[in-house]
Amino acid sequence: MRVIIVGGVAGGMSAATRLRRLDESAEIVVIEQGDYVSFANCGLPYYVGGVIADRQSLLLQTPESLRARFDLDVRTGTEVVSIDRDAQTVEVRDVRTGAVSSEAYDHLIIATGAAPAGAFEAAACGPAVATLRTIDDIDRIAAVLDGLPGGTTGSAVVAGGGFIGLEAVDNLVRRGLEVTLVQHGAHPLSPLDPEMAAVVVDELRAHGVDLRTRTAVESIDADGVHLDDGGTIAADIVIDARGVRPAASLLTAAGLEPGATGGIPVDGHQRTADPRILAVGDAAEKIDAVSGEPTLVTMAGLANRHGRIAADVIAAEEGLFDRMPDESEPAAGVAIIGVFDLAVAMVGWSERRLIAAGRPHRVIHAHPTDHAGYYPGAERLTMKLLVDPSTDRILGAQVIGRRGADRRIDVIATAMQAGLTASQLSRLELAYAPQYGSAKDPVNMLGYIADNNATGLTHSIQWHELYEAQAAGAILIDVRSAAEYDAGSIPGSVHIPVDDLRTADLPEGDLIVHCQVGQRGHTAARLLAQRGRRVRNLDGGYLTWSAGVRMTTKEFA
Amino acid sequence: MRVIIVGGVAGGMSAATRLRRLDESAEIVVIEQGDYVSFANCGLPYYVGGVIADRQSLLLQTPESLRARFDLDVRTGTEVVSIDRDAQTVEVRDVRTGAVSSEAYDHLIIATGAAPAGAFEAAACGPAVATLRTIDDIDRIAAVLDGLPGGTTGSAVVAGGGFIGLEAVDNLVRRGLEVTLVQHGAHPLSPLDPEMAAVVVDELRAHGVDLRTRTAVESIDADGVHLDDGGTIAADIVIDARGVRPAASLLTAAGLEPGATGGIPVDGHQRTADPRILAVGDAAEKIDAVSGEPTLVTMAGLANRHGRIAADVIAAEEGLFDRMPDESEPAAGVAIIGVFDLAVAMVGWSERRLIAAGRPHRVIHAHPTDHAGYYPGAERLTMKLLVDPSTDRILGAQVIGRRGADRRIDVIATAMQAGLTASQLSRLELAYAPQYGSAKDPVNMLGYIADNNATGLTHSIQWHELYEAQAAGAILIDVRSAAEYDAGSIPGSVHIPVDDLRTADLPEGDLIVHCQVGQRGHTAARLLAQRGRRVRNLDGGYLTWSAGVRMTTKEFA
Repeated sequence: MRVIIVGGVAGGMSAATRLRRLDESAEIVVIEQGDYVSFANCGLPYYVGGVIADRQSLLLQTPESLRARFDLDVRTGTEVVSIDRDAQTVEVRDVRTGAVSSEAYDHLIIATGAAPAGAFEAAACGPAVATLRTIDDIDRIAAVLDGLPGGTTGSAVVAGGGFIGLEAVDNLVRRGLEVTLVQHGAHPLSPLDPEMAAVVVDELRAHGVDLRTRTAVESIDADGVHLDDGGTIAADIVIDARGVRPAASLLTAAGLEPGATGGIPVDGHQRTADPRILAVGDAAEKIDAVSGEPTLVTMAGLANRHGRIAADVIAAEEGLFDRMPDESEPAAGVAIIGVFDLAVAMVGWSERRLIAAGRPHRVIHAHPTDHAGYYPGAERLTMKLLVDPSTDRILGAQVIGRRGADRRIDVIATAMQAGLTASQLSRLELAYAPQYGSAKDPVNMLGYIADNNATGLTHSIQWHELYEAQAAGAILIDVRSAAEYDAGSIPGSVHIPVDDLRTADLPEGDLIVHCQVGQRGHTAARLLAQRGRRVRNLDGGYLTWSAGVRMTTKEFA
Repeated sequence: MRVIIVGGVAGGMSAATRLRRLDESAEIVVIEQGDYVSFANCGLPYYVGGVIADRQSLLLQTPESLRARFDLDVRTGTEVVSIDRDAQTVEVRDVRTGAVSSEAYDHLIIATGAAPAGAFEAAACGPAVATLRTIDDIDRIAAVLDGLPGGTTGSAVVAGGGFIGLEAVDNLVRRGLEVTLVQHGAHPLSPLDPEMAAVVVDELRAHGVDLRTRTAVESIDADGVHLDDGGTIAADIVIDARGVRPAASLLTAAGLEPGATGGIPVDGHQRTADPRILAVGDAAEKIDAVSGEPTLVTMAGLANRHGRIAADVIAAEEGLFDRMPDESEPAAGVAIIGVFDLAVAMVGWSERRLIAAGRPHRVIHAHPTDHAGYYPGAERLTMKLLVDPSTDRILGAQVIGRRGADRRIDVIATAMQAGLTASQLSRLELAYAPQYGSAKDPVNMLGYIADNNATGLTHSIQWHELYEAQAAGAILIDVRSAAEYDAGSIPGSVHIPVDDLRTADLPEGDLIVHCQVGQRGHTAARLLAQRGRRVRNLDGGYLTWSAGVRMTTKEFA
């Protein structure tokens, strides 16, 4: 059996090594366009920032080490230029010499990844322009930064506030550059909702990042970077991080049409429409866990897993396995990024996306600390949970914080993938000691709120619904302490601390209560509801509301 | 409606506050024997160590604050001395004055917690003796430590290497004392298996703790602490942390017999055999998630959750809720403890316990780093997973490490509680960026090994089975590098690096391969199996084996 794998990083190399463990006799050829295989692409921004000091540590394997350990025929600096599906051959070109050869395959795995969606035109005497996706890219960026005049720290424009863009910003600031982030949308990290992104924006500004939103780079010349809002920014380097699209053209040329996403459609066994050709990684479509529709998720974890499944499928088809592997699970879209001292994590869909799709949902915000408040070093988490009101299933979550966000998103993501309901999060037994959590873990807290919503015990209102409700006559009661109220309050609110509610004279009509994070508000709402009042609790309290209004509310128009 | 709650810490106070949010008109009386309610009992050892500097921060609520916020009638310094179930009254005694009164209830919630299983007799002029469970205890310990002669750091004996015992050791060392830990069993933290406890023992010794295992405190006199192995240890203070038993005598006296565990038997709605009496927290039995049998689990999280369920049950019985709450889930036994720089976490059953119960199981060890090795600061995790071979269900896990153990135990615990199989851990999408994890997360790695076991791709052998297998003629091949082999190897092993296996002359007969952690061993085992060899991979590699032999193997006799 001869298997050709196109692309030698995450998905391709997982397929190659797994296949070798299943079949010692298979001929396995890996064709890689670049000079490196199996490099740590997620580490590249941190090499730019100097966090990873040793370039060599990014090069996890070499063709020689892969030959020795796994008997793989790895050919760097070669590319597949075409596929002849009938003949089951690929045309391979040596990138340096241009020499072309034909290689036969029994199975072909496409792991070509993704490529930048566009490219800026650099200008003579203008700032350097680079993407941040390969070892060559970081060598180029390092050369520019190392070449800055002594005593100057330099300046950079990063175009695109997605994952790579923010990692570039973080690392360039760390290296001492003045950094401007140019973002097409209303805020960086578009998978976040605005009141959550506010926390990230605060962090960027606290580290001196010049954030330009709702604008884009129009051109680059010797004067600098020109934006479409008329601004011009002088810079030594421009990092183009405006996103990627699947590298699917090889299959398109072979008559296998891409999906609506631009990615390669595959079945649950990573097979394309041609059963001899499988596809994995960023080039291939995934099935969205929330919608069940094809989607793109460019995550190394999925690439690795799907590469392994592709190897298992080939082994099964060749009779080495007595059964086909289980089909690939839908992609939940779990992701995390470090932005200076913050971890920003997410899974599933955002509120904005649910609204755009017209999908019913409930929203929960909470702001618990990562561990018991009485133990030193507790840090506040900013959490959001999206829930299907008819099934109580988890549709998405966002968790941001200086400690413990990675852990909480993993617990929620695991619960979501296992099909637990949002209310069941309240009943999860999670590890607690005061330095590691709380007896009611932050994830439990989300579950308790979800349970109170689901059973109708609490009626909540979102920050972006407040103004309209007040305009319709609802009275907002701020139940926080006098000190909290004096430090900042919501326009139109009446101040009655929660402990005074039983004895206070209450306004007539519909009520909305709020506290700092939502917890005292819940106690207040329960007290008032039992007195026969129609009352809603402002979800996430003052913290969520103020974060939301700091950002624009246009998304919810 | 009048509800009396006996015990005002975790479970009792959760019941009281939840009940108030459900019923503004109920009369809720909390009877607490001590002077404090709702204090941070999990924080007490850290106050002793000075980590928590402010004693006040341990006192989360007062009777006054609970009156103001929740209209609770909290009576500290009072105890329930008897229950008249027919009359639905309790006899309450004022601890200071001795005055006795009778209080009627419609519902009674027992949240009396647990009490030390025994007590040492202190001697005149001998070391002070204290438990570590209440505010009074830490005041007493602080008085002893503060009273040590100036310039001396003092010394302590801690009896019992369970959770409280180890937290006491950690904090006393932190405070500068010379500490001896006296442990009845073969190693501290008996829920761990010995090769896992080895990591904890190393950490204790690295911090200068004098560890005395397989012995117990026999007596205490002016010479010091006498052990049953004949040793005597001079000490300024003895912390008695030999474990607790449920405080169930109140119900026993009222004719409600305790279970075989000594705890109060309850149904899924926390009701005792008397439907007017509920029990929650450390006094009540839980249902074990692995066996389905009654058990004791003394965790604050369960106490809180069951307190809330008890309130919901009363509300439903009183017609305030239209349905009974879902029954309490079985207890998975998730726990975590900090031992100096290590986090030690566990869930479910240990291998020792499974063996003792005669329950079939598969064992998996892994030693991945908490995040990508190429990103600075990666720390090795020591992980163990116990799997039911017939269902592939997760029976237990142990995770130890300087970083990320809390997160991995929570993911495994969530998967276990949701009913995922061990193999499905390989398919969990978990948050990855190089500073937060790996594209194949440590939990995924356990899943991949489980999948290879379940599909028969790998046959593994445990560290404690190795000697016998070698004695029966199996040849052990060490596939590590020469440098690793030279630094220490397993007796009887033949050294053939994995990359040389394809060309080497191999010994005849049954083979066992091993590497440092098990991963190269898997590659080697697959290679050899495909050449028709009967081969097993030493699970967890050299690291697990050497940890196991450092400890005794008597447990597995």
